[in-house]
Amino acid sequence: MSLVTFQTFVNVKLKPYERPTFSRLPSRISITSSHHKPECQFPPFLPANQSVAAVVFGEASQQSRLYPLTKRRSEGAIPIAGSYRLIDAVISNCIHSNITKIYALTQFNSTSLNSHLSRAYSGGLLANHEFLEVIAAYQSPEDNNWFQGTADAMRRCLWVLEQHPAAEFLVLPGHHLYKMDYQKLIEAHRNNKADVTVAVLDSLRDYNTGFGSFSVDFSNRVIGFKEEAESMPVTPLSVHGANFNGGLNEAVSSMGIYVMNRRVMIKLLKESFPTANDLKNEVIPGAISLGLKVHAYRFAGYWEEMRSIEAYYKANMENTKKTNMKYNSFYDRDFPVYTLPRHLPPSLVSDAAITDSVIGDGCILNRCRIRSSVIGPRTRVGDGAVIQDSVIMGSDIYQRLHKECIGGADTKQVNVPIGIGEGSHIKKAIIDKNAKIGKNVKIINRDNVLEGDNETAGYIITSGIVVVIQGAVLPDESII
Amino acid sequence: MSLVTFQTFVNVKLKPYERPTFSRLPSRISITSSHHKPECQFPPFLPANQSVAAVVFGEASQQSRLYPLTKRRSEGAIPIAGSYRLIDAVISNCIHSNITKIYALTQFNSTSLNSHLSRAYSGGLLANHEFLEVIAAYQSPEDNNWFQGTADAMRRCLWVLEQHPAAEFLVLPGHHLYKMDYQKLIEAHRNNKADVTVAVLDSLRDYNTGFGSFSVDFSNRVIGFKEEAESMPVTPLSVHGANFNGGLNEAVSSMGIYVMNRRVMIKLLKESFPTANDLKNEVIPGAISLGLKVHAYRFAGYWEEMRSIEAYYKANMENTKKTNMKYNSFYDRDFPVYTLPRHLPPSLVSDAAITDSVIGDGCILNRCRIRSSVIGPRTRVGDGAVIQDSVIMGSDIYQRLHKECIGGADTKQVNVPIGIGEGSHIKKAIIDKNAKIGKNVKIINRDNVLEGDNETAGYIITSGIVVVIQGAVLPDESII
Amino acid sequence: MSLVTFQTFVNVKLKPYERPTFSRLPSRISITSSHHKPECQFPPFLPANQSVAAVVFGEASQQSRLYPLTKRRSEGAIPIAGSYRLIDAVISNCIHSNITKIYALTQFNSTSLNSHLSRAYSGGLLANHEFLEVIAAYQSPEDNNWFQGTADAMRRCLWVLEQHPAAEFLVLPGHHLYKMDYQKLIEAHRNNKADVTVAVLDSLRDYNTGFGSFSVDFSNRVIGFKEEAESMPVTPLSVHGANFNGGLNEAVSSMGIYVMNRRVMIKLLKESFPTANDLKNEVIPGAISLGLKVHAYRFAGYWEEMRSIEAYYKANMENTKKTNMKYNSFYDRDFPVYTLPRHLPPSLVSDAAITDSVIGDGCILNRCRIRSSVIGPRTRVGDGAVIQDSVIMGSDIYQRLHKECIGGADTKQVNVPIGIGEGSHIKKAIIDKNAKIGKNVKIINRDNVLEGDNETAGYIITSGIVVVIQGAVLPDESII
Amino acid sequence: MSLVTFQTFVNVKLKPYERPTFSRLPSRISITSSHHKPECQFPPFLPANQSVAAVVFGEASQQSRLYPLTKRRSEGAIPIAGSYRLIDAVISNCIHSNITKIYALTQFNSTSLNSHLSRAYSGGLLANHEFLEVIAAYQSPEDNNWFQGTADAMRRCLWVLEQHPAAEFLVLPGHHLYKMDYQKLIEAHRNNKADVTVAVLDSLRDYNTGFGSFSVDFSNRVIGFKEEAESMPVTPLSVHGANFNGGLNEAVSSMGIYVMNRRVMIKLLKESFPTANDLKNEVIPGAISLGLKVHAYRFAGYWEEMRSIEAYYKANMENTKKTNMKYNSFYDRDFPVYTLPRHLPPSLVSDAAITDSVIGDGCILNRCRIRSSVIGPRTRVGDGAVIQDSVIMGSDIYQRLHKECIGGADTKQVNVPIGIGEGSHIKKAIIDKNAKIGKNVKIINRDNVLEGDNETAGYIITSGIVVVIQGAVLPDESII
Repeated sequence: MSLVTFQTFVNVKLKPYERPTFSRLPSRISITSSHHKPECQFPPFLPANQSVAAVVFGEASQQSRLYPLTKRRSEGAIPIAGSYRLIDAVISNCIHSNITKIYALTQFNSTSLNSHLSRAYSGGLLANHEFLEVIAAYQSPEDNNWFQGTADAMRRCLWVLEQHPAAEFLVLPGHHLYKMDYQKLIEAHRNNKADVTVAVLDSLRDYNTGFGSFSVDFSNRVIGFKEEAESMPVTPLSVHGANFNGGLNEAVSSMGIYVMNRRVMIKLLKESFPTANDLKNEVIPGAISLGLKVHAYRFAGYWEEMRSIEAYYKANMENTKKTNMKYNSFYDRDFPVYTLPRHLPPSLVSDAAITDSVIGDGCILNRCRIRSSVIGPRTRVGDGAVIQDSVIMGSDIYQRLHKECIGGADTKQVNVPIGIGEGSHIKKAIIDKNAKIGKNVKIINRDNVLEGDNETAGYIITSGIVVVIQGAVLPDESII
Repeated sequence: MSLVTFQTFVNVKLKPYERPTFSRLPSRISITSSHHKPECQFPPFLPANQSVAAVVFGEASQQSRLYPLTKRRSEGAIPIAGSYRLIDAVISNCIHSNITKIYALTQFNSTSLNSHLSRAYSGGLLANHEFLEVIAAYQSPEDNNWFQGTADAMRRCLWVLEQHPAAEFLVLPGHHLYKMDYQKLIEAHRNNKADVTVAVLDSLRDYNTGFGSFSVDFSNRVIGFKEEAESMPVTPLSVHGANFNGGLNEAVSSMGIYVMNRRVMIKLLKESFPTANDLKNEVIPGAISLGLKVHAYRFAGYWEEMRSIEAYYKANMENTKKTNMKYNSFYDRDFPVYTLPRHLPPSLVSDAAITDSVIGDGCILNRCRIRSSVIGPRTRVGDGAVIQDSVIMGSDIYQRLHKECIGGADTKQVNVPIGIGEGSHIKKAIIDKNAKIGKNVKIINRDNVLEGDNETAGYIITSGIVVVIQGAVLPDESII
Repeated sequence: MSLVTFQTFVNVKLKPYERPTFSRLPSRISITSSHHKPECQFPPFLPANQSVAAVVFGEASQQSRLYPLTKRRSEGAIPIAGSYRLIDAVISNCIHSNITKIYALTQFNSTSLNSHLSRAYSGGLLANHEFLEVIAAYQSPEDNNWFQGTADAMRRCLWVLEQHPAAEFLVLPGHHLYKMDYQKLIEAHRNNKADVTVAVLDSLRDYNTGFGSFSVDFSNRVIGFKEEAESMPVTPLSVHGANFNGGLNEAVSSMGIYVMNRRVMIKLLKESFPTANDLKNEVIPGAISLGLKVHAYRFAGYWEEMRSIEAYYKANMENTKKTNMKYNSFYDRDFPVYTLPRHLPPSLVSDAAITDSVIGDGCILNRCRIRSSVIGPRTRVGDGAVIQDSVIMGSDIYQRLHKECIGGADTKQVNVPIGIGEGSHIKKAIIDKNAKIGKNVKIINRDNVLEGDNETAGYIITSGIVVVIQGAVLPDESII
Repeated sequence: MSLVTFQTFVNVKLKPYERPTFSRLPSRISITSSHHKPECQFPPFLPANQSVAAVVFGEASQQSRLYPLTKRRSEGAIPIAGSYRLIDAVISNCIHSNITKIYALTQFNSTSLNSHLSRAYSGGLLANHEFLEVIAAYQSPEDNNWFQGTADAMRRCLWVLEQHPAAEFLVLPGHHLYKMDYQKLIEAHRNNKADVTVAVLDSLRDYNTGFGSFSVDFSNRVIGFKEEAESMPVTPLSVHGANFNGGLNEAVSSMGIYVMNRRVMIKLLKESFPTANDLKNEVIPGAISLGLKVHAYRFAGYWEEMRSIEAYYKANMENTKKTNMKYNSFYDRDFPVYTLPRHLPPSLVSDAAITDSVIGDGCILNRCRIRSSVIGPRTRVGDGAVIQDSVIMGSDIYQRLHKECIGGADTKQVNVPIGIGEGSHIKKAIIDKNAKIGKNVKIINRDNVLEGDNETAGYIITSGIVVVIQGAVLPDESII
């Protein structure tokens, strides 16, 4: 695929600029992958924590992909691996990368994300650092609208962002699962003297990331962008190694992670593309079109962008296998994942056979069998229950014994307590928080439905996985 | 004024219920003012912290009243008395009243309120209590709109509120300045076995509170509501003492503070008035109309509802007088006002004559004179400056010396540093945060303007008070 | 048993006062047990948090009773029930009792207690409350000695205690396990207008508490004290019911919990008994002798004072039984036990059969069987291991893979990693923190030893329970 | 002065080793001062926060130097510059140097230091990092003694220190005032492949630091140590520049700051010098004698070691001069000094003329004049008072109006409230916390006493500075 073809992909609402020709100046060679460190360069820069601020988006623009997990929360707030929220992975990356200023932008079902971030990361010694600030969409005298996209959100928050003396801003999706030292990304950005640096997958794997792909030249400079349809089957744009073959370029998949110099960011949002709503499809491609120095930083590690319930399900399942944890930070002493600290009691187990599973704290497990499952905090499992290949998110509270204290008008539902009832059998399912599964319920996808929406009954089925909705009630003897 | 007249004030969008006649059953006499404690009743209830949750609104519905202080923040986040934010007074009331669960609802310029509340009240030991949760307006699969009013906001957050096992919910405006032990309010509510209790001013003072007035009978039961036009001159509805005069009722002014039983709240919002947007004008009057047991709790202390810039200005000025502090909590050892803790250095004073003023921490005061003024944290005052009868909110940061680190495109403005320049004279003004007042500037309202809008120049004038907008730049030698 | 006899028990080093005769004035009847609430008395006092300060002792005076668990920590810091420290129970009682000022006095192996208390209870919103202050024994210009006892410790800290405007001081041992609302104790103290109130067990159970016993008259006034030898078999001093039998008194066991009025405390320590070292045997009996108004407050709930390794072992075992939890606060929503919040990952279980056990968070359990055991945080259990009737305290860290990073000189020991090795069998044992149990180790008390000291080999045996010392290394194939 | 002479200074209790001859191998030249960065060396090490732990001593071994400021607190806890404690400077250095593990060792009047450190640095996000742990001297089954010196203290805490996987330990006195990036010190240590690195003053200034002096060769390797008598007048050991003159060595003054490799530290304390009590005079000189690779790191910045009341007084006075702040971190945005966050109200000033002073928060200043003084938090100054050239530490509390709540037996003293009474005149004095200066008191050192002890009257005089003791009461009309 030639450069010319790539140019035509750029399709942004440009202001009536002259469409710039690509500057193909042979910039100095710099290998900036995370594997090959530049040989002998002491970076004459401030450390990350003094000059970089991160902007984390609490949710993707398309909420539907993880519905119904996003019925009451944004994507970043979805529980993962029993004890965490998706956004914890990115926040922990920031902490380990010495980034001490994070703006979390959110507007979709922002309550639980806001609560989680505030309680987990806002207090203590860092109070005066303002380590993390949540910016929920807001009305102002100037603008009564919701955020219209990532670019619009950042533009409307520019007055806040500008207060921080960051030299670079690092834009991060908040619901991806990966482990990256952003210091290396920043270092590459600085060594390349780039205006913008985009993180890309270092190989052809997972090609269609949903963030489009870039065409990069031999020096890792980005020379084109291609937006991709979500559903379209993709063909590799070029063969790895073509670089050495007479100037052909390589196509790499965007991770949706951008480093922008302060002035570049302000100029792009305010002057160059003042009406662009989206970074991915408008501002970043626009920056390329304008001939700005956009570089790619290749990332080789595990990266999961949670594009579907199935991907989310699989990422959870990974954590139940001791031998093959793709994202192993949860048990990594030197690179731990942070989250909201809890003081829950240990799990109380009456008589359980547990295989290849993770068990959160504060669970009450009666005589039951659990296999290949993620059991979240405060999960109650009744006698005789069997859980396999499932994600049980657990409960936010220990339910009171006196039912009348909890229930509103719906006292009938309260008769099914939160948790998994006696004799129930759950297989290949995701049970969201505070769901009430009655006795002898079977969630086994009896009819092998692949996709099905039964939200009024409290669940949907997608890719054959039954997802029971947060707080849903499945009465005794139900069968799914 | 008779009961009949009062009934006609009730003007809510009722569902096609039969309009109930007032239940005038002679309920048992109970004097529930904060002055007269019931003689011998040990309350057989849980303490407040186990059964009451507070719902605090970050802003009034009409934002315009304190504009331009609300240009970048909600009313609750407006600085007061140098070191505080308005909402701190209400949050501190809650802390002193042993209320350990607060929901702060906000949507208008919510960023700074969110940041303040999260950092000041979300961390530490209380992390697992979830002492305070900010609920910013959010989009959800079910509803893409902003909150349409206080009732709409609560209805949309009911799924969150219901998770807390509170027996009563206490609704509080977040921008009022007063000191109240809500435990007494709750106790009165319980002793009266009321469905709803409204806090009212105990006399005719400040009659038009903007929250309307209630007609109460001899037992403090509310039997009518009257909405009031903001601008209309008001006549006392009845004369104090009329109670003893054959069944006449008394009119009392609402403080916008409501206690509602859990089930009553849910029923009013979901079933009785499912389309009502407002508590003040729709739900509470509706509850009266339905014949629910609504009681009034009389409050006798200082109460300032910040209805205008002038009221805000005066409330600040109160704090500069040692002898006559109406709201004396700021220096009250036993009832302190909490806020975001800071570790600022002490103020550095080169040569200042200071009279009847309060000086925040971290100020840098050069040779200057300050009289009857509130000087907020990190305020810098240049040589020869004179400040009198003014509120200087201070700065969020110590400005760097290297200008290029701060400035965006607007390097010209940076030449005027944050603070009050040398030789400037400021009189009867409010200087919002981070404003940059150049040298030899005169803010003296030279032309005795009473009302004037010069927002593009960085200020407005209201009631003769000059308000310089947050971050505004007044170049050297400016005269206002 | 008559009053006369009781008097002779009082054996304190009195200053040359005249030994006062007991004032037997018939004080008004007041039943102050925690069961029978005074019928109609609204307490005209400040709530507990405004006038009571607690003084918690981190350890008993005799350290030996729980050795070797106290080899590196004070009694209050001993882990209990997987996730907690003993002192958490008392601190949580204080929190639930609205007591917001605690002084924790300690000098014996104070490091871990200090660290635990500081991290768990010192930060956040309460920072300015100074909710909890640890006072470790210290040298001063006036006194170079360690604390010589509870009375000496309090006397030397009086200058700190006096800074708090508490009306009463509540003295609490820090290593007892019970659930008490101290507000009721304070209320009884105030209703009785007592100088000192002592909490006592309400029946004859557990008679010899180690804190001596009091003789109380029909009005619950204390009229005598009897110190008891630890080892002596005890006979009930009086028969319950004797009260109704013509003025006979009753003997009740002290819990070591004292409420003292501010001035009384200061006077007793400074003036009456300026050289007394101990509260239990000197100051409190002395107060009785002086005729001060000392009252008893009867407590009926579960109370465990951890008098021996065996008692500690049994208290842990109680928590593994779902049906019969004597101290059920760990899973009590309304009266939770607080502790240091953690953000550990959930426990990763490969293949475990778990019966009647509690499992802390962050454990890594391979193919193993666990029965009737407490498994603390971060415990690693190897393939084929069997654990029964045991307390495994877990680990403070996840061990690094690179051994050289951890090890000091002793690289040989590092070959046995922290945790329970493959194929090991542990029965009726307490495995302290960070112990390294090799492969195929048997801790089964093969020879049925009842008491045995093998500390150099890393363990002792007491009451037939094997206690492996903190950090001890048991090489592969060891048999105990 | 020759090397031979230097050797003789080494006077430590060596175990019967062979006294090693100095290894004079020509180690590679490395200039490790903080000014000259090695030219091109990317350090192949972990960043500081992953491999360095700091050991901070709360007090010097000789307490007397700052007495009576140390009457109730350790040196590290002495207030400085109005809002801070001395130890905050060192802790802030650690924070800015990315050191995330600090052990604070203390035994002398440790209460206030413990309280300050716990509240300021133990909570929040860092809770699980265990950022800072206070180790107060403690009794253990193995050792009932107090710490006998810095080396003894570290040896007895080795079991704690060893739990941290630090590669190097950084030993720091806790009461010095300076700004150092320890990362550079560590980097120099690593580049030199040193066993021990000592920080030294880079010139002859302040020669007698109390920590002795080192003889260093041309490569900054330390080849000798000389202990110095505190009172002895000192002569420079060598002339700067002698290095270039045929092998002569240079004498540099120790700052008492040591970096030790993990294994070196353990070996020195346990094996080489198992009975040494002191680092300064025994272990470090011993390491030199043993031929270990000990390097000096030169520090050029402001350094104040608070050797006397006079030095402390002067360091405070520095902060009142805007133009000439030697230690300017208190107002440095990029290198702030952290401390316990407070939420005090702003200072309330009735009518004050303030010159060249710093004013803490929460003060109440009536009609008074203040010149060249440090006024600490919550200071109350009465009408007509004059304060000049003084350090007023302020108050820990706002005194209640109801005197009986505070006072113990001494109700007479309470009649003088905390603060500076009306009409009083204070000049060149240090007024410690919570002192009660009556009306018309004159603290002017009327008789020009240079040294005088009047502790029973509540003050001493040293170097002509009057020091009023913490909590002392000076009755109305007193004259000093």
